[in-house]
Amino acid sequence: MTISERFSFETIASEGGARAGIYHTPHGDIPTPIFAPVGTQATVKAVTPAQLEELGASLVLSNTYHLYLRPGADLIAEMGGLHEFMQWPGPILTDSGGFQVFSLAAIRKIDADGATFKSHIDGSMHRLTPEKSIDIQEKLGADIIMAFDECAPPQDRAYNEQALERTTIWADRCLQAKTRADQALFGIIQGGVFEDLRLQSAQWTAGQPFDGVAIGGLSVGESKAEMHAVLDAIQPFLPLEKPRYLMGVGSPEDLVNGILRGIDIFDCVLPTRLARHQSAMTLRGRVNMLNAVHAHDPQPIDETCGCYTCQHFTRAYIRHLISARELLASTLISIHNLFTLLRLVRLCREAIVEQHFTDFAKEFLSQYNHPVRERKIFTLR
Amino acid sequence: MTISERFSFETIASEGGARAGIYHTPHGDIPTPIFAPVGTQATVKAVTPAQLEELGASLVLSNTYHLYLRPGADLIAEMGGLHEFMQWPGPILTDSGGFQVFSLAAIRKIDADGATFKSHIDGSMHRLTPEKSIDIQEKLGADIIMAFDECAPPQDRAYNEQALERTTIWADRCLQAKTRADQALFGIIQGGVFEDLRLQSAQWTAGQPFDGVAIGGLSVGESKAEMHAVLDAIQPFLPLEKPRYLMGVGSPEDLVNGILRGIDIFDCVLPTRLARHQSAMTLRGRVNMLNAVHAHDPQPIDETCGCYTCQHFTRAYIRHLISARELLASTLISIHNLFTLLRLVRLCREAIVEQHFTDFAKEFLSQYNHPVRERKIFTLR
Repeated sequence: MTISERFSFETIASEGGARAGIYHTPHGDIPTPIFAPVGTQATVKAVTPAQLEELGASLVLSNTYHLYLRPGADLIAEMGGLHEFMQWPGPILTDSGGFQVFSLAAIRKIDADGATFKSHIDGSMHRLTPEKSIDIQEKLGADIIMAFDECAPPQDRAYNEQALERTTIWADRCLQAKTRADQALFGIIQGGVFEDLRLQSAQWTAGQPFDGVAIGGLSVGESKAEMHAVLDAIQPFLPLEKPRYLMGVGSPEDLVNGILRGIDIFDCVLPTRLARHQSAMTLRGRVNMLNAVHAHDPQPIDETCGCYTCQHFTRAYIRHLISARELLASTLISIHNLFTLLRLVRLCREAIVEQHFTDFAKEFLSQYNHPVRERKIFTLR
Repeated sequence: MTISERFSFETIASEGGARAGIYHTPHGDIPTPIFAPVGTQATVKAVTPAQLEELGASLVLSNTYHLYLRPGADLIAEMGGLHEFMQWPGPILTDSGGFQVFSLAAIRKIDADGATFKSHIDGSMHRLTPEKSIDIQEKLGADIIMAFDECAPPQDRAYNEQALERTTIWADRCLQAKTRADQALFGIIQGGVFEDLRLQSAQWTAGQPFDGVAIGGLSVGESKAEMHAVLDAIQPFLPLEKPRYLMGVGSPEDLVNGILRGIDIFDCVLPTRLARHQSAMTLRGRVNMLNAVHAHDPQPIDETCGCYTCQHFTRAYIRHLISARELLASTLISIHNLFTLLRLVRLCREAIVEQHFTDFAKEFLSQYNHPVRERKIFTLR
């Protein structure tokens, strides 16, 4: 396989390791760095595609594991593919299903050829292999598809060695299996917190004809220092001409730290999941909107924010919606949280173009109020 | 009190008893006949104000009982009133709280002066009187406010006689209590299914300086024939120059039957409540969107419909959202259902203007597929 047609990555500015670019895809240009809202089940939870477009989303991620189980890849193909099905006109990325098999499936059995697992929805048995994952992703029809990988607990050396070996063989099988020229296939660097394994994986992946390079298995329980060490170690080995995607990462400080280390694409359920738990994201930290302090507050969540929610609604109103268990609370906070992350990557991009991103990042990170305890979004079982 | 300033009702066409008009209010003109979406807790469930505006809503209803208990009328007044609080720029109507005291409160005790009741939210004790209801509604600041009435079980003669007596005295007290000239106060005709009581109530209400006349206590358990008999009986006694509002009524056939009998304004939770129970409304009947028959259906809910949902999404997608318990299902079906009722009243209005509403109504009612069992929306306790 060669680099897919109709895709190209253009760097328009860089500062240190940080890059500002444009990733051209069949469904439109993605300004990078970018944050991709997650539409796990072919919908970004509580938000319509029209609202997503209005808040400035570009790339949207959806999950192969979930869509394969429900409603099924054949049904989505029959409906004209994922873009048509969920009515997202812009670029879409699907993951390979690998991560969910390891984190969500009720039971699972991995062998050299693939993974057998029990559906978390109805207990039915299923099997994913590299070829099957690519087949499903080709039916879904996203612009960017991912190699089928094994995501291991980050601190387990023996597990990571074995998983990396399988991930490498599977990545090669994905490259062979891919048939559509209108989809870009990204390889995934694994290796847990072990720098030698990560380097080995990065070098191998960089040498393959992937359209882009992803870093998997981070933000799954390791420390921030470990995450940064891995990103720092592999950065020199990543091809400059391909987009780089840090999977499942999406807190504001992780975005800025990732961009500092040359990452172009991020995704995370964080903004929409926090929204459904009444937590609003700002560029200074999180705000629990149910807190009684907001009861009489006529200010928006963030007075510097230009989103629909902040342009219209008071903290007092949003707190009322949460107290009254109204669905609109999830919608309004989701819109705000997604806008906030998209605003942050836009600010980063502008700073890179204007060559003051290092200062911007330093100031941002010094002012950002880290939550006392980072909510664990994913738990490996 | 006299007729409030800044309000006027203009009839632009009529056919038989049916009228097409414009009700001018401080927050804009309401084309009549109109259906008012219900925003019980200062939000039309699962729909943003921007979406409501896009689907063509005009008048929106909100519930005094709910808002009084949570977040409280003082808080809403402090936030600039209900229009500002919920960000609905168009006309708003609040009910008096009477109906909810009788249908929702955990316990209640009615006396000549008012009603004492226990909150369904936290068990706290509260008291509503005509003066208190008007005071709350003046704090909320809706365009149209309602007299505080007692809603009795429709078939209980003795109860209705007593309730009507109180309702009449209370209505007079509401007229005395009202102070704001930028709010229209509507009186409410009660009397259950008893035509003599209804006539007595209609004649009294018609003779008072109310800005409009409402018919309460219908669609609460009586038969369709009984509802129509009441509407037919009172129609000759309703003043032509004032708007007429049939409270809590909102199924498509009830709208058409009400318009035939001279009703201008309707409200009901039906479209949004059905939406949250995966039932889509069409001009031919209801459709259970979870039905397996829709699994592979590439058609919209209603191919003749111009709403956002039908312009974008397939039945297959909406069924998937319901199966996957996605919030977006409620939003998309709510948008469609509200649009459908607003479309129906618009079609009725056009037919009246073009003088073929009688034929339109006859054809509509002959083609409308009545649900096997009308879901009971309200239950009097």
